[in-house]
Formats: sequence, structure tokens, C-alpha cells
Amino acid sequence: MRLPMIVCLAFLMAGASAMADPLRDQVKSLFEPIPETPPALPREPATPEKLALGKMLYFDPRLSENHEISCSTCHNISMGGGGLSESVVQHREQLGGRKPPTVLNAVFNKWQFWDGRAADLKEQVMNSVMVNPRALLKARGGPTVINPAEMETTKQHAVERLKAIPGYVEAFKKAFPAEADPIVYDNVGRAIAVFEATLITPDAPFDRWLRGDDRALTEKQKQGLAIFVDKGCSNCHNGINIGGGIYARFGVVQNPGSEFLPPDDWGRFAITKNLSDKYVFKVPSLRNVELTAPYFHSDHTWDLKQAVSVMGEAQLGQQLSESEIDSVTQFLKSLTGRQPEVVLPILPPSVAATPRPQP
Amino acid sequence: MRLPMIVCLAFLMAGASAMADPLRDQVKSLFEPIPETPPALPREPATPEKLALGKMLYFDPRLSENHEISCSTCHNISMGGGGLSESVVQHREQLGGRKPPTVLNAVFNKWQFWDGRAADLKEQVMNSVMVNPRALLKARGGPTVINPAEMETTKQHAVERLKAIPGYVEAFKKAFPAEADPIVYDNVGRAIAVFEATLITPDAPFDRWLRGDDRALTEKQKQGLAIFVDKGCSNCHNGINIGGGIYARFGVVQNPGSEFLPPDDWGRFAITKNLSDKYVFKVPSLRNVELTAPYFHSDHTWDLKQAVSVMGEAQLGQQLSESEIDSVTQFLKSLTGRQPEVVLPILPPSVAATPRPQP
Repeated sequence: MRLPMIVCLAFLMAGASAMADPLRDQVKSLFEPIPETPPALPREPATPEKLALGKMLYFDPRLSENHEISCSTCHNISMGGGGLSESVVQHREQLGGRKPPTVLNAVFNKWQFWDGRAADLKEQVMNSVMVNPRALLKARGGPTVINPAEMETTKQHAVERLKAIPGYVEAFKKAFPAEADPIVYDNVGRAIAVFEATLITPDAPFDRWLRGDDRALTEKQKQGLAIFVDKGCSNCHNGINIGGGIYARFGVVQNPGSEFLPPDDWGRFAITKNLSDKYVFKVPSLRNVELTAPYFHSDHTWDLKQAVSVMGEAQLGQQLSESEIDSVTQFLKSLTGRQPEVVLPILPPSVAATPRPQP
Repeated sequence: MRLPMIVCLAFLMAGASAMADPLRDQVKSLFEPIPETPPALPREPATPEKLALGKMLYFDPRLSENHEISCSTCHNISMGGGGLSESVVQHREQLGGRKPPTVLNAVFNKWQFWDGRAADLKEQVMNSVMVNPRALLKARGGPTVINPAEMETTKQHAVERLKAIPGYVEAFKKAFPAEADPIVYDNVGRAIAVFEATLITPDAPFDRWLRGDDRALTEKQKQGLAIFVDKGCSNCHNGINIGGGIYARFGVVQNPGSEFLPPDDWGRFAITKNLSDKYVFKVPSLRNVELTAPYFHSDHTWDLKQAVSVMGEAQLGQQLSESEIDSVTQFLKSLTGRQPEVVLPILPPSVAATPRPQP
């Protein structure tokens, strides 16, 4: 009888302290914890075979023309699901581009990409620059909008390569057993989306606190959360992903400066052509933000405190004090969840007939 | 009583058939199976903390100046432990270089690198071009020999970056608890070597056959093995790694042509300066060769059959028949072992004070 009593007592205590915390009462309608198990994608059941295929494709550099760049190159699961900064690539390759958004918890975003041009993970894969980063060199209309004809060609090339790798012929058959010709780019997108949807980070200190564990946040972090809400950060950064659910202009109150907001990247305007969408971007998720420096779509700062300060000025017109910035930064560090445990897939080998990398 | 009798019978049968196979009797002194558990490194105990640190470093692109290239970029465990072809990099970066040898089972090689210039895994890490691929641009004396001063500078930079990542400060302390200042490049090499030594691939069909399982090889593969030994391939490709234990000139009997043997890469000569070492290379391991196209230090062919044919002519002066080439190729595919199961490490994040990537 001892165990159930202790369990009951623990529940009562958690309940009592949860009820007694006015801060939690104030904010609980704004946020939502990451669930322990990944969500099901609409109309895309996650069979083990589809998941295994999606994981292989995510890590396979042969999806790119030069066999060098996989999804994981720019969305490195070891580094918060982002990692490689496109600004760095830019120096090397003379490419334009934005900071790759994290793949972790991306399934919870309302749209994908900084400009929201993909409605879901599959569409994001289908539109990804990973297919041929050199396509960016030929880009028209903005740094991440790719010539559609070029995009189709590179997709077709990727499909030709996959068809010439016997292990993938088997894997696509198993993942899409009802289809006569399963190796099509649409299925590449579907399989990768199924894998990406598993990449969630539950059990962050903030989530444990939301669920009633008072000790999951330090006092400083609770102060930071109060500032985050009272100053208005949570007007945009809210919901399950603490972001990812609305669009906002970067520089609502005050232009953050061209280093943070490069004047030639017009954001969502490139998609909608509405003048009111100039410099409008999807509000990014702040989940695991501690792991994903450098910050902003422009990658401009490696200092989370500076990022908080810039956001206060640009978006809220507020000069936050050192102490406030420090508290908010401490709170943001409570958004780091349990990172996914991913066993590296073993990829099917190329054979003599597999098309070679194109430099 | 039923189970033990069946087990006994199975043992007797395996023993009987093993004794009855003259091919196994002929070749068993030439080869050795990969063990089930990784070997201990001499004078380098593999503590869990050292292993965890080594794995993090292996996957961390921040060891390179531009934060883009980790050990795993060129030694991709998902792709037979090799993967990225330096010839491809060459097109992009105008770098010279050789095909990255596989990291799998590298612990069993007598020396490391194509030219054997490192005595062990730690020395290989210490001499790796991964530290700064751009150093190759300044290389003197051959495609993979790096200016020693440049090498020291880039090592020092790597150490500075690691020291400015709080998670690594902790991880090095735990891995090298007796040392006052554990973040030194020597310990980077030690930790990565400990991780690399775990990357072995036991249980290949050939190994199961060597141990007495007659059915582990097809008849065609047994024919291939007989040709492999009778024609003389096993004069160089033998031992536990079916290679990796001796040096040989590429083109002993006949020059394989400049596409396979680029005239400006003099191999071991660049290390020893002995004229007799011109175009001499370490005989590579054939373990998992099915997974590691393209072949040769020059990466020149993606076709394992062509590689077998070229070797027959260049090294043995033999024009192998189609059927012989096919049998040997089938035998080589029996060298694919159980690939390592590696859970991706989660890397400690950079902070504001961490040095930025250098383009």
C-alpha cells in the first residue's frame, strides 16, 4: 500500500503547487508542451518501412547533384537540427541564402521555411535547395526562390540516381507497396517528411514546469518568462513551438540594421508580391534556441543575449536592461528538450550503373 | 533433452563440413575473421567518457576552420566509412587529394593513410587534412603532405575553439581526469582514435565461412575465392583486413594508365624519398569494398568489376576472363560485414565567446 500513497501524495503536491503559481496560471494558455510521442502526419501513416526509407534519404548525400550535401548537412541533428550556416556557405560558394531553420519540432510549425512558402514538411522537402545548391546561382526573384525548371531537372536527376541504386529500389517498394512505380520525387518527400516528423524534443525544463513541476525552472528563468510575456515577446513566440505559428515584419518598431536585416532579402514579399509582406518572415520557433546559433534569418549574431536585445528594440521598441536580457536568455535555455536519439542509417551502395556525382 | 542433442548435432555437422572443405584448409592461414568485439588500443584504455568525447569530436564540423567539415564528412559511417570522394572536392575546391580510406576496421591496418605515413589511428587523426582542407592549397611536396607550420596553426585554432565551448571543457575533464589542462590536440587524437577503434564490421559471410559455416558463401563466391588465392591477389590482400598490412607498387607488372595512377602522386616516395617507393601505396583493405566505390586512391572507377580487371592486369599481368572477374567480384561482396550501429552524438553548443567559422 505504500507506493500508491506516495504516488497520490506526489500528485496532490504537484497539483497544489501548480495551482498556487500565479505565473503558470497567467501563461498556461499561451504555451503547450511538446508531447512525448511524435504526432501522426495527416494522410501519411508512418509505417516502419517508410520511416526507415525516410531516414536513409535524409542522410544520403546522393540526393544532391555533387553527392556531397544531404538534408543532414544543413539540418544537423547533432547540432540542434540546424548547424551549417548558409552565410558561411555563401563565402565559399558565392551563394545567397538564409540560416537553415531547425528540423527539430518543425512538424509543429504552421508553415515551413522562413517565408512560409511550404505548407508542410513534405512540401518543404519538395522545395528544398538541398537538391542542387548550385541552382541558387541561377536563382531569380530572391535568395531562396529557385528557378522552377532547374528545380524539376534536379528532382528528375535525383530520381534517376535512386532508381539506379538497387537497395533503394527495394526500400521504395517496401515503403510504398501499393504503387507500381514507387520511386518518384513525391515519395522522396513523403518518406523524408515521415522521418522528420519523429524529430521532436520533449521534456524541456519549461515543459516540465508547464506540467506542474515548480522546480524545473530556476527563479531567474521564471523572472525571464514573466518578462518574456509582459514585454510582449509571447505575442509572436507562443504555442507549442514558442513561434512558428504567425508571420511578422522584422523591424516592426525600429529597423534592426542591415547586418541583421539584409536589404536585398524581402522575405515573404517574394512569395506573395504584397507590398505589406516586405521584410515579413515566419516567426521562428525558440525551442532549443540555445543549440542553434548563429541567430536570425541572416545568421548575424552568435550571442543569444544580443539576439534578445535586438528583438526587444526592433520588435517591441524596448531597451531591455542587462538584467532583463539575462533573465530572458536564461528562460530561453529552459526550452532545450531531450534531443532525438537517431541511429545512423546504413545507406545502400552505388553500383557501376549509378550516375556519378556532377561537380 | 531435445535441445542439447540438436545443438550437439549442429556442432558436429559444422565441424564435419569444415574439415571436409579443402578450400578452407588451403586459405585459412591467409585470412582471419573480424572479432565480435573491438580490440583495445595499446596504452589507451577506452573509458566510456573518452569514447563519448571521441564520438562527439568525430562528428563535430567545428574541428575545421570553416565549421563545415568533420571526420564524418569524408569518412561517412553510413556509406562504408568512406563516402565523399576527394576527386569531387577537387573539382569544387581545386584541391588535390586521394580517396579517403575507410575508417571501418582501420584499427586493424598496420599503418594509416594510403602512404602509411601514420603509425596508428591517433597519429592519423593528428595528421588529418580535416583540420583545414584549405591548407592543401598551400601544400608543398605532394597532394596530401601539408605544410607543418600551417598544420600546427590549424591545430591550435581547433584547440582554441574547443576551449571556448563549455560542454567540451566538461567532456575533456571527464575523459582525461588526471590532466590539469586536458584540452590539447594530442587528446583530440586520442579520443577520436578510441571511437574509431570501435568501428569494426564483424560477421561478414566470408568470416562465417572461415569459421566453418559452409553455406555462408555461394558456390560462385567460393570459386571467386579460389581464383583470388590462386591468381595471387591474396599475396597482398590477406590477413584480418584482406589488405592493410603491406606496401606495393601500383603497376607492378603493367602501368594501369594515368587515369588510375595520376603521374603527379608519387605515393610513399613523398614520405621516404626512396626512389623505390615511387608509386608505392599501402595495399587497401577489401573489407566492405562493395560499399566504398569509387575505387583506387585515384577514385577512378565506380565499377567493382572494372577494378578487379585493372588489378589483374596491373598487378598480376593477367587478363582475367569475364567469368573470373564476376566470381572474384561476388567473393568480394562476401566481405561486407555487420555495419556499426552508431547513435548520433548531441554536440555541445557554441556560445557567444566561441570563435566563429573562418571562410
